[in-house]
Amino acid sequence: MARKRAVVLLSGGLDSATCLYWAKSRGYALEALSVHYGQRHERELRSARRLAEAAGARLHALKFSLPWLNTSSLVNKEKPLPNLPLSKIGTGGVPSTYVPGRNTIFTALGVSLADAVGAEIVVVGANALDYSGYPDCRPEFYRAFSQVARLGTKRKAIKIATPLVRKDKAAIVRMALRLGVPLKRTWSCYRGGRRPCGRCDSCKLRAKGFSQAGTEDPAL
Amino acid sequence: MARKRAVVLLSGGLDSATCLYWAKSRGYALEALSVHYGQRHERELRSARRLAEAAGARLHALKFSLPWLNTSSLVNKEKPLPNLPLSKIGTGGVPSTYVPGRNTIFTALGVSLADAVGAEIVVVGANALDYSGYPDCRPEFYRAFSQVARLGTKRKAIKIATPLVRKDKAAIVRMALRLGVPLKRTWSCYRGGRRPCGRCDSCKLRAKGFSQAGTEDPAL
Repeated sequence: MARKRAVVLLSGGLDSATCLYWAKSRGYALEALSVHYGQRHERELRSARRLAEAAGARLHALKFSLPWLNTSSLVNKEKPLPNLPLSKIGTGGVPSTYVPGRNTIFTALGVSLADAVGAEIVVVGANALDYSGYPDCRPEFYRAFSQVARLGTKRKAIKIATPLVRKDKAAIVRMALRLGVPLKRTWSCYRGGRRPCGRCDSCKLRAKGFSQAGTEDPAL
Repeated sequence: MARKRAVVLLSGGLDSATCLYWAKSRGYALEALSVHYGQRHERELRSARRLAEAAGARLHALKFSLPWLNTSSLVNKEKPLPNLPLSKIGTGGVPSTYVPGRNTIFTALGVSLADAVGAEIVVVGANALDYSGYPDCRPEFYRAFSQVARLGTKRKAIKIATPLVRKDKAAIVRMALRLGVPLKRTWSCYRGGRRPCGRCDSCKLRAKGFSQAGTEDPAL
């Protein structure tokens, strides 16, 4: 019997790397999908390449530009990145880093790839922390997308899997350690550069996760 | 009050042109979205540009390549295009021109654009004829996608509109004539070139539609 196959949306950050190794631990042949859509930096794509290599995944790296996404501070360098105290992150509504419909597009690309290569699941790293702020990280969003995938593909049996959807960052760090994710290769910082900035929302949340999990971040 | 706004997926063919003028007739400000994803030819993109111009729509033209789509004869020039008698079109399951997850990707791009520019609807030209063969043209697929759009966007109120979904080609031709669509500017042929080939599924279905509507095709 042919091995079952998974498409994993791989940004190169901690969450998506954990998804990659989650699928690996379940015996799926791995198809990783990385998308560069005009983010501020390409540093995380390099991480995605190194992670895919380590996990034995085939990497599909896409690059395109969607001009209308420059409403987001994650894409438009002229907009300031948010710099909130940790306790305020996720409490102020949709943050300026929100990229309109990004996960809708990414998940759609994953479904397309899954239909083309014969994969059963599209794995997405959305989690509890994200959906405090981003509408396209909520569990019900992915349930609705599973319907779309079932109705809109030739293979029909494609599901969206969100193994992190109920987890906070500390739980994700513990899961990553258990699965043997090469954490040194992951990149979470919203900025580029050689080292994570330590100041953006993403760096702060990652640091809190490692601290609560009682372990050091090997990427620092 | 600001004018209500619509995103229209505009391939340059008869169906999407009719959608563009449907939205125009309802008073929407128009944002047209054209995607070149490695189809055999760029002829239809030229039609999209000319149609957007005629309708007073702002055109967003995207170009990207999804390497895995070359399983489709609409993308991969080494695969033969189907050449069925008219009575057999739509009866043989999913045709080789099926592009995996294409409408899922296009609709996702439309939702992203709608969320960025503040549009209420994303108009898609899927119709009864298409969904005899393509899974991602069925009404229930677009109903599920409206859920995705509602749950996954900042604006929440975005709907997928499919004004042609119950119509056959003759009804679409009649609707196009009623709405004043510049039919001469539309392009339906799967092949490129200066003139439609007259032999592909798309040309045959278009010819039948005009014939049943009792009118000549001004694009021939």
